[in-house]
Formats: sequence, C-alpha cells, structure tokens
Amino acid sequence: MTAPARETVSAAPVADAALSSFFADGARRVAGPEHGQLWSALEQATTGGKRLRPMLFHSVYAALGGRETAVAAQVGVALELLHTALVVHDDVIDGDTVRRGRPNVVGVFAADARDRGHDAGRATHYGQSAAILAGDLALAGAVRTIALCGAAPGTVARMLDLLDRALHLSAAGELTDVRLSLDGAADVPAVIAMEHQKTAVYSFELPLQLAAVLAGADADHESALTRFAHLLGVVYQIRDDLDGMFGLEADTGKSAVSDLREGKCTPLIAYARTTPAWPQIRPFLTSGRDDDDAASRVRTLLEECGARAYVEDLAEELGREAHESVAHLPEAALLAEWTRTVARGTRAA
Amino acid sequence: MTAPARETVSAAPVADAALSSFFADGARRVAGPEHGQLWSALEQATTGGKRLRPMLFHSVYAALGGRETAVAAQVGVALELLHTALVVHDDVIDGDTVRRGRPNVVGVFAADARDRGHDAGRATHYGQSAAILAGDLALAGAVRTIALCGAAPGTVARMLDLLDRALHLSAAGELTDVRLSLDGAADVPAVIAMEHQKTAVYSFELPLQLAAVLAGADADHESALTRFAHLLGVVYQIRDDLDGMFGLEADTGKSAVSDLREGKCTPLIAYARTTPAWPQIRPFLTSGRDDDDAASRVRTLLEECGARAYVEDLAEELGREAHESVAHLPEAALLAEWTRTVARGTRAA
Repeated sequence: MTAPARETVSAAPVADAALSSFFADGARRVAGPEHGQLWSALEQATTGGKRLRPMLFHSVYAALGGRETAVAAQVGVALELLHTALVVHDDVIDGDTVRRGRPNVVGVFAADARDRGHDAGRATHYGQSAAILAGDLALAGAVRTIALCGAAPGTVARMLDLLDRALHLSAAGELTDVRLSLDGAADVPAVIAMEHQKTAVYSFELPLQLAAVLAGADADHESALTRFAHLLGVVYQIRDDLDGMFGLEADTGKSAVSDLREGKCTPLIAYARTTPAWPQIRPFLTSGRDDDDAASRVRTLLEECGARAYVEDLAEELGREAHESVAHLPEAALLAEWTRTVARGTRAA
Repeated sequence: MTAPARETVSAAPVADAALSSFFADGARRVAGPEHGQLWSALEQATTGGKRLRPMLFHSVYAALGGRETAVAAQVGVALELLHTALVVHDDVIDGDTVRRGRPNVVGVFAADARDRGHDAGRATHYGQSAAILAGDLALAGAVRTIALCGAAPGTVARMLDLLDRALHLSAAGELTDVRLSLDGAADVPAVIAMEHQKTAVYSFELPLQLAAVLAGADADHESALTRFAHLLGVVYQIRDDLDGMFGLEADTGKSAVSDLREGKCTPLIAYARTTPAWPQIRPFLTSGRDDDDAASRVRTLLEECGARAYVEDLAEELGREAHESVAHLPEAALLAEWTRTVARGTRAA
C-alpha cells in the first residue's frame, strides 16, 4: 500500500526506528537462549510489514495538528505490536507456517525442532507453542508501550480503554471467524460483521481513535473518525477478499484460491452460497486443489453468479459512504486520499 | 494452601471482590455472543483458585507497612489475571482440557463445538483457538490493570517493568519446558532453572517485588525479598513435583503418575535418569499406564534409587536457605510462616 499524503512521508521510517529501538531495548534484557530466540523471532515477525496502522495513526494525528512526536512514535509502536500479536496468534489458529513468503514464528521454531531430529507433528507443536508465547510478549508489549508513552495520565487511560476495546472485539471476531468456518452457511452481513470485529476495529478504528484522543479532538470529531474508519476498514477487508480471488498471485503473495481452500468465510463466498452456481463452486472448498485451472474455473463461476459484481459494488458504495461521512472535516483531503488508497486494494497487512 | 498469617486473613476475599468487579466491568462492555462466551469462560477460569499470588502480595505489602488498599487490590487482580493468562495458554500448549477437575477454557469451547455436531479434532481446534484468545484478554487485562492501578507514575512504571520481566522469563521457561520434554535428558539444575523461569518468577518473585515497590521499600530490601522469593518458588515447584508423585490423588487432584505420562521434566525424573534404576523407570514414561500398580511400582523405584530422598533434601535445604536469607528483615516472622506453608506442600495453583 502506498503512503497517500505528505503527512505520511516520514511515518514509515519513524515507525521503523521506534520499533527497532523497542526491540533493541528488549534484546538488552534477554535472559537465556529460549528468551533470545523468542525475542528475535518476534522482531523478524514485524519486519517487512507495510506499517499500515502506524501510518494511518501518524498521518491523521499530524493532520489534526498533533505535534508530540516522541509520544506518537510510541503509539505507532504499540499499534504495530498489537498487529503482530494478533497475526502471530492468528497463524497458530489457522495452522499457517508461512507469512509474506517466509517462515512465520511457527515455521521458524518448527524448522529448529526438525533440525534436532523431531517428526513433523512434534515440530509443529513446538513451533505453535513458541508462537503462542511470542504473541504474548508482543501483546503485553503493546499495552505497556501505551501505558508508558508519556502522554498525560487521563489521555493514557483513554488510549488504554480504546486499545482494550479493539483487542476484545478482535478476539471475538477471530473466534467468530473460526466458528463460521466450522459451521459454514454465514450470510454476507454476518461475514462483514465478523471481518469488522476481527480486523477493521484494531486496524482502522483504533489508529484514528488514538490520533483523535492524543491530538485532543472533541467527541464529535472522534465519533466521525471512528465511523469513517469503520467503513474504510470494511472496504479494506472486502478489497482483500477480491484481490485474494481476482488479483495476480505475484501481487498478493497468495494462491488465488487459497482462501477457498482454507474454508475462509468471505463476502464472495457468502454471496455465492445464495446463488444457483453454489453446487458448482462448493466442491472447490474441500477439494484441496489450488492449480491454475481450478482458480480460473472458480473465478469464472464467481463472476457468472454475480458475486464479484455484488461485492465490488458493495466496496464502492461503502467507500463513497466513508468519503461523504468526513467531507465536513478539516482533514477531509487526507482521509479522501486514504479512501482512494484502500479502494485501490492490494493485499497489505 | 492455608493462609499463613494474620495479615493474609482478609487477602483472599479482597482479591476475590476486586476480581469480581474486574469481570463485572468487562461484562458491561460485552459486544456479541462470542465476546460474552470468551469473557465468561475467562471468569470461570479464575474461580476456584487459591489466590496464592495475590495473598503473597497482600500479606507482604501489609507487613511492609503498605496501606494503599485500593491500589493493592488492583495489583492483586493483575497478579491473578497474569496467572490465569499463563495457565490458559499453558493448557493449550500441554493439550489439556481439564483443570481442577472441571473443563478448562479449551474443554468448555470444545464441548460447545461437539454439541454443534463437530468431530473431536475440530472441536479441540475450536477450544484451543478460544483459549488462545481468552488468554490474550487476561494478559492484556493484567498489564492494563497495573497501568491503571492508581499508584504514582514512577511506581507504575517500575511495576510494569517487573511484570514485563516476569512475563518474559515465564514465556522463556515455558518454551524451555516444551523443548526439554521434547529432547529429554535434562539434568536436575536445568530442570530447576526451567521451573524457576516458568513459574517461580511470576508466582513468587513478582508478588514480593510489587509489594516492595508499592510499599516504598529500599533497593536492598527489594533484593532480599527477590532472593527469598526465588528460593521459595523453587521449593514450591519441588514440593509440587513430590506431591504429584507421592501425594494422595485425593489431595492433588491428579493421578500419581500423570506427570510421568505427560513426559514432564521434573527434578525427580532428572535425578532418576542418572541412576541404575532408569532402565526400569523409563518405560513408564511412554507406556500410557496410569493404574495403581504402575504408580506404586514407579514410586518404589524412585525411592529405591534415591531420587525421592535427594529431591526432599534439596527442598529442605533450599527452604532453610530461604528462611535464613530474610532472618534479618522486620517481616521475618511472616516470611518464615510462608516458608513453612510452602514446605508443607500440597498442590496449590
């Protein structure tokens, strides 16, 4: 995802520098080899990310007139740590061992166990155990970083409340995702509500809420930004779904039908389930096929049954709604640029 | 475990009341059924515990002259939440579905999935996913509760550092435990170092350190308490090992050889491995037998090879060392009573 505005030009390096300093500080306190391995795997897990959440936060904070750069850098770190914690635990839950084309925390530790001669099952268990623990360190680090960010006590308390809300909704959304994948048969509104809870709240609402609170925006302003972030976050998830299915694998880093194969509940699938094409699409969910022929066939079916058009229209409509909802705000130009960036898609994380 | 002193008489009810209020506060913010289920499972996971960590904290804090009861109540809540988070994630890592004779978080959600018609594998996956997420809520709650406990900012920062250290060492110790169980062949010092990291730091050192910091004890005093807690925590773990093997099942709530069967690295096993009796003991680790005959035979072998005597002597020696290390402190009588209580054993958690 490309940084959308002047305000964000320096946001990614700022976020990277603050994060490096967080990990260097932790590295000085490492006690023993396992601790060192966990910490280093966690740092690796944060590298290569696009810093979407810190960039959102920094750009909106600056647009709102915020100038406490040292405090803001810490808030950016907390956002990236929260994201890392959720991603690392999500990978355990999803049984994934790879992320962004490299071994994730599970994969790194599982490879270590295999190198010591253990079979695949035991190696995966070792990797998943390490990932649960590494995620715990990132999560506690996120809360602690907000607590010690240096803002006024009342501001810190409000930010901790917002972080807590986002974590709770994200956990609930993640559990709902697992349940929907298990039980099947969710409709489009249920899938969108789940994706909102699981990802949009902590990835979009939280950065903008923290920006508003730290910049001292009033309650109406904060509400408007939250509403905007809600809509933008849902558009982001819908675009992610569309890109995963119709984007080029080179752009997305994922096989076109990997979402299907994993039984993921997405708006495309939820819509397709209500159409006469479903009996033809359904077998691809469980076939384990992810070759080009299968991908091409599924894409055609999703287009013919109207799922693609429905979901694209939905993204466009929600994007327009997001845009209009903040047209009256002083920072409307920046928010419009974020809306366009998100609407353009590409799988960021 | 019995409360050891006058100072602790009211500690358990205080800890229970503060914890109830924490969960009631969270319940008012529940958004959706999955969120409610996670929160309620987490509250259930905290019930029935002996509140060892809050009791240690409250009793020592009071003995040091601490009188900020509202702040202290919050610190007690944080200690119990941290314990809950670690236990809930430990159960996922160990593949356990029961704790204190009732379904744990994994077990509760797995039963729910089975009731919806899913097979055992999928039900366990759902249960473990929920437990990872519930543990996350408890962990973030622990850090947040310290951050908002109401102590002076400098005191809060120091307490957050101590909590962070304890969490990091506990995660490293947990990963070491998994690795030792996998690789086998750890010696007694390695097992004791692992148990110290995994449990003694957060269960004993942290409560006493928080008591010292909050009560304004000087650095020497805090160091002495930390050293005492280190020794006491190791004694506690060694007693837990002995009680698990030689205690009555009715007292411990666990089968006498369940530690063996799980391949747990304990001081008893690490010692026995170095004796000629090992070839006779080893088969019980993998046999899956946990009948009375097997238990009785293993007990006899561990007595005959000297493992029981060695480990009991070790516990006694470390207990004496703990006692002597704080004989000069004003609160020596209270600490001596805790030492006797821990040395008496019984599986507390």
